[in-house]
Amino acid sequence: MDHARRIAALRRKMTRAGLSGLLVTHLPDLRYLCGFTGSSAALALTRRAARMFTDGRYTAQAREEVHAAVVEIVSRNAPVAAVEWLAAQLAPQPGSQAAPLFAGIDPDRTTLTELQRWKAALPAKLRRTFLTPIAAPLVEPLRLVKDEDELRILQEAALLGCRLFDHILGYLRPGLRELDVAAELEHQARLLGAQGMSFDTIAASGPRSALPHGHATAARLPRRGFLTLDFGIIHDGYCSDMTRTVYFGSPRHDERGAYHAVLEAQESAVAAVSAGVSCGEVDEAARNVLRKVGLADAFSHSTGHGVGLEIHEAPRIGANQTTRLQAGMVITIEPGVYLEGRFGIRIEDMVAVTRTGGQVLTPAPKALIEL
Amino acid sequence: MDHARRIAALRRKMTRAGLSGLLVTHLPDLRYLCGFTGSSAALALTRRAARMFTDGRYTAQAREEVHAAVVEIVSRNAPVAAVEWLAAQLAPQPGSQAAPLFAGIDPDRTTLTELQRWKAALPAKLRRTFLTPIAAPLVEPLRLVKDEDELRILQEAALLGCRLFDHILGYLRPGLRELDVAAELEHQARLLGAQGMSFDTIAASGPRSALPHGHATAARLPRRGFLTLDFGIIHDGYCSDMTRTVYFGSPRHDERGAYHAVLEAQESAVAAVSAGVSCGEVDEAARNVLRKVGLADAFSHSTGHGVGLEIHEAPRIGANQTTRLQAGMVITIEPGVYLEGRFGIRIEDMVAVTRTGGQVLTPAPKALIEL
Repeated sequence: MDHARRIAALRRKMTRAGLSGLLVTHLPDLRYLCGFTGSSAALALTRRAARMFTDGRYTAQAREEVHAAVVEIVSRNAPVAAVEWLAAQLAPQPGSQAAPLFAGIDPDRTTLTELQRWKAALPAKLRRTFLTPIAAPLVEPLRLVKDEDELRILQEAALLGCRLFDHILGYLRPGLRELDVAAELEHQARLLGAQGMSFDTIAASGPRSALPHGHATAARLPRRGFLTLDFGIIHDGYCSDMTRTVYFGSPRHDERGAYHAVLEAQESAVAAVSAGVSCGEVDEAARNVLRKVGLADAFSHSTGHGVGLEIHEAPRIGANQTTRLQAGMVITIEPGVYLEGRFGIRIEDMVAVTRTGGQVLTPAPKALIEL
Repeated sequence: MDHARRIAALRRKMTRAGLSGLLVTHLPDLRYLCGFTGSSAALALTRRAARMFTDGRYTAQAREEVHAAVVEIVSRNAPVAAVEWLAAQLAPQPGSQAAPLFAGIDPDRTTLTELQRWKAALPAKLRRTFLTPIAAPLVEPLRLVKDEDELRILQEAALLGCRLFDHILGYLRPGLRELDVAAELEHQARLLGAQGMSFDTIAASGPRSALPHGHATAARLPRRGFLTLDFGIIHDGYCSDMTRTVYFGSPRHDERGAYHAVLEAQESAVAAVSAGVSCGEVDEAARNVLRKVGLADAFSHSTGHGVGLEIHEAPRIGANQTTRLQAGMVITIEPGVYLEGRFGIRIEDMVAVTRTGGQVLTPAPKALIEL
């Protein structure tokens, strides 16, 4: 990972935003910028220097992982240490006529309590204005567009997900509990080298498939009915995410029809993906197919979301979203229909946006599988 | 779970704090107060009414789970809907001479962006003062002391953890990868009915045992050396947490000595637990034992923490902490020593505080196990 390049890109954004310094506390941002994978740290940036603060538990790990920033081990709260350092770096010399300086903080990731604590650590004359909530995210737009290293890792993560789906097909049979399926999937994920699951595995069978967030329960897989599996793994810090819906027995006419409608909606949305297209247009491509068959109301969520170091990232692929896709974004395309008390279906791929289209990263079969 | 009783207790705290209303957005607090287990909701309380706002994904689930509050399904942001409702409930009638009213928000759980968004949803005249950061946590002190239902569930969770440790003892052998151990542990947890793990399983072997947070890697279990296993499951929403350190082969003199020191420190701290004792005194009981054998510097973290709906809750069992234990608190006692490049040892139990002492919830063996 080229952390120095990422920090340089962030500095250009800081300059454009008029910031002399920036405090980064959101851990995925911090990992993105300097590679640190521990659970407690703060990164302080000025236009010249970068310094990461963490505690004694992470001395060895920080030394090994972080090269694009100076590491300082502190026994006090890491963000407080970072704020004090920023103030010392940036405050005008006594007697100087220099304009007051600002260090940006991320209002999406800063609680009222944290801001109060950080301010209390500042000299009185800096307390009111030194820490400035940034008007628009600075790190998120960088993370949105994945670089080559990230695309490679996300492709590997997605393929690992596909291998899990292939494995679980050989395991599924009526009468198993949903949680047996989740257990087998997660066990196999570990054996294949995944660091963990990127979210609680969804295994929703029979009428429970109508729950968009049906986490695995003791419910038994039916002799006749759907099973929706929505799962993801973490590989080298990056998340995979995919959904397949399979059928036990022979689907009824309406079930088969609904499946094909979801599949067509999903493929239409995938086909709509391309740099320059708005997220709303991709969402509409899926929604339009379902509208034509009277299932638009049964599609109760957005079409997808960005995925990377976090399972849910920008952009949101939802109705009327005007954000335009850029080459290098990785998004999910996951329309579904949910008919309460009856059944539900969702099909989800990860898709990398390219200049001319979208590359599906999860090439597992999508034609209806009858088990 | 007696949610009505919990909400009544919270209302008494609101009254004492001079609050007419309260907004609760932290999901574990919300679950504690009204039983909702979904991933997106806000709870609004006045002295007379309780109303939970969530979205259409959770219609069926909220209806099933929530009885102590009125459920309202909204298509807009749930906290915004809750703030609007609070304002409508609490704002003085036009022309009224009533004093201005306040609704409390939790500054530990509210970001700058959220507060700005909530304020924007208020009528102009309420914007400046209606939402008041509470001066001290209101829900946390309630959650700190577990009621009988919670103690029963935490005991079950802890015993499930012990069964896992027992199971894994029969599986461990030199040459396995740490991640095989984590995979087996997590698979078995699922099969025994756990909802998931309460944190990333730590399996740190050989010199890696000197990393307090050594997550499972592809490193192989040694023919001679320690393995530290720190793991927990989620049962009925509540977390377990335990650590045991075992040895492969026959420990060297210094290794055996260090193990016994940690065990003595751990048992001394457990023995110090009782209602009325300060958290700092419990920490000191462990630290003092290690100090006597020159290992105090190798004990680089606090002795423990509260555990419940979240894996890390108040109180913190650390040096100089003046908070006093109360009957019904459930805490971990987990001293350790970490000698970089050589080895590490940690032993951890969950302990329920009683009026006269502490009840260990994790009765797995602690004498050194040589495999």
